[in-house]
Amino acid sequence: MADLLWQKPGVAVDAQIQRFLAGDDVLLDREFFLYDIAASKAHAEGLQRIGILSEGELAGLLRELDLLADDFRSGAFVLDESYEDGHSAIEARLTQRLGDAGRKIHTGRSRNDQILVATRLWLKQKLARVAQLSREIAKVALDRAQAEGPLPVPGYTHIQRAVVSSAGMWWAGWAEAFIDDAVRAADTLKLVDANPLGTAAGYGVNLKLDRGHTTAALDFARMQVSPVYAQLSRGKFEMAALEALGSATLDLRRIAWDLSLFTSAEFGFVALPAQYTTGSSIMPNKRNPDVIELMRATHASVAAARTEIEQLLSLPSGYHRDLQASKGAIFHGFGRGLAALELLPALLANLEWREDRLRAAIDSGMYATDVAVEAAAAGVPFREAYQAAAAGADTAGQGRTPEGSLEARVSPGAAADLRLDELRARWEALAEYPQ
Amino acid sequence: MADLLWQKPGVAVDAQIQRFLAGDDVLLDREFFLYDIAASKAHAEGLQRIGILSEGELAGLLRELDLLADDFRSGAFVLDESYEDGHSAIEARLTQRLGDAGRKIHTGRSRNDQILVATRLWLKQKLARVAQLSREIAKVALDRAQAEGPLPVPGYTHIQRAVVSSAGMWWAGWAEAFIDDAVRAADTLKLVDANPLGTAAGYGVNLKLDRGHTTAALDFARMQVSPVYAQLSRGKFEMAALEALGSATLDLRRIAWDLSLFTSAEFGFVALPAQYTTGSSIMPNKRNPDVIELMRATHASVAAARTEIEQLLSLPSGYHRDLQASKGAIFHGFGRGLAALELLPALLANLEWREDRLRAAIDSGMYATDVAVEAAAAGVPFREAYQAAAAGADTAGQGRTPEGSLEARVSPGAAADLRLDELRARWEALAEYPQ
Amino acid sequence: MADLLWQKPGVAVDAQIQRFLAGDDVLLDREFFLYDIAASKAHAEGLQRIGILSEGELAGLLRELDLLADDFRSGAFVLDESYEDGHSAIEARLTQRLGDAGRKIHTGRSRNDQILVATRLWLKQKLARVAQLSREIAKVALDRAQAEGPLPVPGYTHIQRAVVSSAGMWWAGWAEAFIDDAVRAADTLKLVDANPLGTAAGYGVNLKLDRGHTTAALDFARMQVSPVYAQLSRGKFEMAALEALGSATLDLRRIAWDLSLFTSAEFGFVALPAQYTTGSSIMPNKRNPDVIELMRATHASVAAARTEIEQLLSLPSGYHRDLQASKGAIFHGFGRGLAALELLPALLANLEWREDRLRAAIDSGMYATDVAVEAAAAGVPFREAYQAAAAGADTAGQGRTPEGSLEARVSPGAAADLRLDELRARWEALAEYPQ
Amino acid sequence: MADLLWQKPGVAVDAQIQRFLAGDDVLLDREFFLYDIAASKAHAEGLQRIGILSEGELAGLLRELDLLADDFRSGAFVLDESYEDGHSAIEARLTQRLGDAGRKIHTGRSRNDQILVATRLWLKQKLARVAQLSREIAKVALDRAQAEGPLPVPGYTHIQRAVVSSAGMWWAGWAEAFIDDAVRAADTLKLVDANPLGTAAGYGVNLKLDRGHTTAALDFARMQVSPVYAQLSRGKFEMAALEALGSATLDLRRIAWDLSLFTSAEFGFVALPAQYTTGSSIMPNKRNPDVIELMRATHASVAAARTEIEQLLSLPSGYHRDLQASKGAIFHGFGRGLAALELLPALLANLEWREDRLRAAIDSGMYATDVAVEAAAAGVPFREAYQAAAAGADTAGQGRTPEGSLEARVSPGAAADLRLDELRARWEALAEYPQ
Repeated sequence: MADLLWQKPGVAVDAQIQRFLAGDDVLLDREFFLYDIAASKAHAEGLQRIGILSEGELAGLLRELDLLADDFRSGAFVLDESYEDGHSAIEARLTQRLGDAGRKIHTGRSRNDQILVATRLWLKQKLARVAQLSREIAKVALDRAQAEGPLPVPGYTHIQRAVVSSAGMWWAGWAEAFIDDAVRAADTLKLVDANPLGTAAGYGVNLKLDRGHTTAALDFARMQVSPVYAQLSRGKFEMAALEALGSATLDLRRIAWDLSLFTSAEFGFVALPAQYTTGSSIMPNKRNPDVIELMRATHASVAAARTEIEQLLSLPSGYHRDLQASKGAIFHGFGRGLAALELLPALLANLEWREDRLRAAIDSGMYATDVAVEAAAAGVPFREAYQAAAAGADTAGQGRTPEGSLEARVSPGAAADLRLDELRARWEALAEYPQ
Repeated sequence: MADLLWQKPGVAVDAQIQRFLAGDDVLLDREFFLYDIAASKAHAEGLQRIGILSEGELAGLLRELDLLADDFRSGAFVLDESYEDGHSAIEARLTQRLGDAGRKIHTGRSRNDQILVATRLWLKQKLARVAQLSREIAKVALDRAQAEGPLPVPGYTHIQRAVVSSAGMWWAGWAEAFIDDAVRAADTLKLVDANPLGTAAGYGVNLKLDRGHTTAALDFARMQVSPVYAQLSRGKFEMAALEALGSATLDLRRIAWDLSLFTSAEFGFVALPAQYTTGSSIMPNKRNPDVIELMRATHASVAAARTEIEQLLSLPSGYHRDLQASKGAIFHGFGRGLAALELLPALLANLEWREDRLRAAIDSGMYATDVAVEAAAAGVPFREAYQAAAAGADTAGQGRTPEGSLEARVSPGAAADLRLDELRARWEALAEYPQ
Repeated sequence: MADLLWQKPGVAVDAQIQRFLAGDDVLLDREFFLYDIAASKAHAEGLQRIGILSEGELAGLLRELDLLADDFRSGAFVLDESYEDGHSAIEARLTQRLGDAGRKIHTGRSRNDQILVATRLWLKQKLARVAQLSREIAKVALDRAQAEGPLPVPGYTHIQRAVVSSAGMWWAGWAEAFIDDAVRAADTLKLVDANPLGTAAGYGVNLKLDRGHTTAALDFARMQVSPVYAQLSRGKFEMAALEALGSATLDLRRIAWDLSLFTSAEFGFVALPAQYTTGSSIMPNKRNPDVIELMRATHASVAAARTEIEQLLSLPSGYHRDLQASKGAIFHGFGRGLAALELLPALLANLEWREDRLRAAIDSGMYATDVAVEAAAAGVPFREAYQAAAAGADTAGQGRTPEGSLEARVSPGAAADLRLDELRARWEALAEYPQ
Repeated sequence: MADLLWQKPGVAVDAQIQRFLAGDDVLLDREFFLYDIAASKAHAEGLQRIGILSEGELAGLLRELDLLADDFRSGAFVLDESYEDGHSAIEARLTQRLGDAGRKIHTGRSRNDQILVATRLWLKQKLARVAQLSREIAKVALDRAQAEGPLPVPGYTHIQRAVVSSAGMWWAGWAEAFIDDAVRAADTLKLVDANPLGTAAGYGVNLKLDRGHTTAALDFARMQVSPVYAQLSRGKFEMAALEALGSATLDLRRIAWDLSLFTSAEFGFVALPAQYTTGSSIMPNKRNPDVIELMRATHASVAAARTEIEQLLSLPSGYHRDLQASKGAIFHGFGRGLAALELLPALLANLEWREDRLRAAIDSGMYATDVAVEAAAAGVPFREAYQAAAAGADTAGQGRTPEGSLEARVSPGAAADLRLDELRARWEALAEYPQ
């Protein structure tokens, strides 16, 4: 069992209770460990700047923290249940290697702000990745809209054939969707880009901590000023991040639904490269689009993670142990969410339209709206034109072609005027994040 | 039963089915009705600009639409179950008054983009209100932080007494929280500030609609380019708006929890003006803080509204009738959410601290952290100082006062260095929305 | 503004606050009003039995309560915002008509147990309806399974053609699903069938209330013994009821998905009577299966209602005003849920299979599993037989027919051995509830 | 990378895609592995009974399956990423050890019914544990209600002092709550106690499988008849199980809230043994009730798990890969939920009331209801008595004691008539499940 940092003599510790308290907490801390080390370095630098640590002590701490990071990456150091949590593990290691300098590292900080800052750095990195992937997905969609614009695709409402649409319109729709998702992830990144380190247990501390230094050293856009708010933002920022991710995974759920139908035998509009499908254990004839289905399922995990945190946050201000459950939630949500988004650019780049099937699914009734609007343009009141077209819907297609319908679709954003340049301008304006 | 716009001859209509289809849809449309009229005016102007309507027809439509808005506001026109929905009601009224000009109003639009644009205008107004109220709440909190900064308030973690805190720290925490909520509402407003009018049923139309005009006339920041995305954003934008609202109502839930405890006999830190409390039907002695409890309950309604939409959005692209259920959800969420936020500024401005109770709740152990950190500042390794202070926690308070503890709390953001100027600067930078 | 039962002299009342407190509470109470009256009669009888009311007073109260119920049903009495809530309205009316007898009706009860008992009676009635409708749906499914058993229907996994299935198998699946839903609703009804009346504000009262009488008079299966638990069950029982409803609406969501696909042009397996479809405001050619889509959307409302209550229930024991928000939630969930389930029996009874389309969708690969299993039955290890069948999947259908495949499907529950008798036996065992 | 059972020659496999498809699926299968082995034994017996396997083959399979279970329990066999999933691992091992007998084990079954039956057995065991733990918790509560009945405890509504209550009333409330939770878990266990094995991929199979045998051998109460429903119940039964668990964890959340308040310095009603508390990393004075807070947080994980599945289940009938995400959800929900419930009986048995603090918190206003009801019993109309008591609430306590108040609380279920015998009778009637 782990040594407990806060253990006081004479208090019996019950093993089952300790296991319950620990949960899988220390294992989850592996995700945060390098961020915790980075923040510990900044904290140590801050302590030296206000005279709590000597230059020599600081040098030792920085060296040992770097070594610990190396050992963690290499596997030479394993963060496991022999530690109460990642924070204790860092302090224990530094004390073991450096003695008093290690015992000083926790001066002026609490595990409360320590976990906050590690989580914040982690969230920033994940949100940057959501923004970046949304940007990549939008790029594929824009490029294919450009390349395949005029290809006729049946347009549906209510999963019923409605009007002629085009590959250009379909791709442009997803492009604009994921541009918005990238904007949202970037906005959220800005919202959470505030440094909580130096707020201690939620009430600050009687030391003139150099929070300006740690803010700059950790590349935060600003200091999160209030220690009370630093604690209040636990969970709140995680939810905001999951909601930004969820915006993308909801779009993913809907594009996966399109593809799930389009790859069915009945629609048959799209062919997927074989590596995106799997077989059945009993039915020799099957090739199933499992990748698409797991993509469709992804939002459920993001939604679950968000729910888990939302359910926790019915609490007064101040830290409560309840909040520990928010850790696993964000790993689950972002783990699943990003894994699915990572695959989407290539999948979209590689899917193939089956033109014969697309054309075969365009029936004559799908021109009826064109007919009615033409009559309206010629002066027939639309509601009359509609009634006339309804009466003649069966013969609406006479002499009409998908190409003709699409060429006449001149309303801004429609097939004959996709405005890809406007979308591309918004795409260009998206923040670019390093991989 | 309502006349049905799309009704075709010879199709029997079942009353129970019609009631199910209608639900309370037309009643819900009352919320949107004025926005629908405003968008109809812009649409009519656009139609005139491309020659579908004559100047005379346009003048008639604009006049009748204004009259309809007046009649609706005055109650002379009642939108009720005799109409299928608000959209049909507008068309029917215009046709009745103007004949063919009315029959032309729906040229080039679908109820699909009509409901989108009305919802979008409504969401913009609601998000502006969330931003504005969050700003007002933050203002009260900043002002009281300034005015009452040094008042000692016990600081809690785990609902256990932890360290001395102050009214300044408590108020500053909520100020920063609601500043972030205002930022988020404003970001979301920008995200949804895109004009879907002119995208028709999701695939555009064979008319050169003047979407630039309607975008400007309805004061949208940009055009939502893709008709396919316009449909995909149904529900997605509603969720984003509810999430922004939810950020504020989650903070509301937590401040209500603080106040629920603080107004209990056991804490007794806060007195509320009598109008915020109610009596019991059986217990003559009771004055209950019901307002606070209903504020705490508010987030549940916002969460429910968001869930309702999230559960709907497992669909392929294109319009589906499922989406109708998103209307009631946003009314419910914003209705409850804004009603509660509206009351918060005055409640916060009027609550009174009970200083005697605050001071009585500060016990000597709450100075132990100060003692340990002082020792650390004097060179004792913190972990040793901690152990020593733990051993002497009972006597930690000797010779110490809340004031002394707070004056020494010099870490940035803490009691002796609240940095209200930094918070006020962020507050000043918030967008101001007209009421 | 409403008169307030508990109002004390000298306390100012703020109109905006009162509106917030009231919300739409009194309007919601209309749903409960007749139950509240019924429980008030039982309570009055109980008070007479312990000597609080004279026989004459009781007779007057019973008479006036019946009259109030009549007036409410006829519309002569309208429960509106002039009352604080339904409970106050009853007491006010009785006091106005009867004087002191009216002032006595609240003896030994609180609005806390009054709303509990009215809600409980309401929930029992709604759960009985869920059970009954699930039973009706299962009946249609059983009857059609019997009647149309051998009709070939393509069987899907992953929305990909898998093996030959049958109308019998499809209907039997839904039959068993809704039998389970009926069982679950009945179990839940039993769980909540406990009388909370007589528990007052959650701590009982210093009167020997005749709870045995009220339990019997209101037809409860048992007394809910503990006053503390009576309060704890607020929300808990509502959630249990919504979960039972949700079991049925989740099945509804899935059958609606089947029908949404089956009524598409691409599948085309099912024709719906015209009254289940609607037209489009712009596209003259459309007949959309809106009823099916609103059925599919229904679960979202049930899920939202459940979420709303779950989010509230992070509270200590005892009554809190937060719980008021649970009222609207159950009306919303059950309102939508039951409206959809009410339509399902007739819809299922009236849908028509399109045999030609069903047969056309059965391709030769769908016999490959039959081939492999036959080989396995003849002694070839299954994994080898599977590999062989996979290699020859394209020719698997030679000489095979859907009928042949189905006749050989002899595993219990499969097409050739549907075991409808077993399902019918479970159906017969379902509790029957009066309409 | 794992060998893929269904792999066909010539299809390239992409490593990133395979990782996405696999997720942590095989690791999750460890939870199910012993159940999968047990069901494989029953399936093999069934195959032998219909002549697919010889007696010798069966004997070999049973022996190797037992050995595999032993090796798994001992760690000699590790289920890891070298297998696609647990099902493939079993088949691979049997084939390696037994050759053709191994290749025959999958005859007439699919991974679809294989995972269903393993999950079903797992759910039954978990629900039995929920029932059992709820029963144990109720037992502690009943025993302490009996032992400490008359101890005065302040009764609250709105977290405001209301009337005198007692330890007996508090404990009896929780007893009745957890009795209901045990009933619900047992009802749910009965609902899911149906054997899906033998339904293959959801459409049965052309073999006369002996489903009666497997049903009896695996100790199921009945056969799940319909193969279509077997697939439809995936997720549905998991949700039902999580909802039953959630009923108990919601009660846990509320009792944890009581204890969180009761262990605060301000209430101070309850002392917890030291092993239930932890220290702070920075504040030497703290002993925090973390166990209680993590118990309070538990429901969030159960709610998240349920949400994850509910979000998945917007699908047509038939198996979809989306459903894979339901596995991790139930492990998360039941893992957290049961871990918390396991600790509750001992925690409740060991908490100590602090009688001095309880008595000190009973103020004179808490007798006002007694006063009013006494007057009502003496003939004063209650509403008048209420007004009089409200006017004299401050002096209501004169000459009154908590004991006097409790002795007069004679309504059934209240302090003077707890009816523990009735609760104990319901407790005795609960199904007892072996540990």
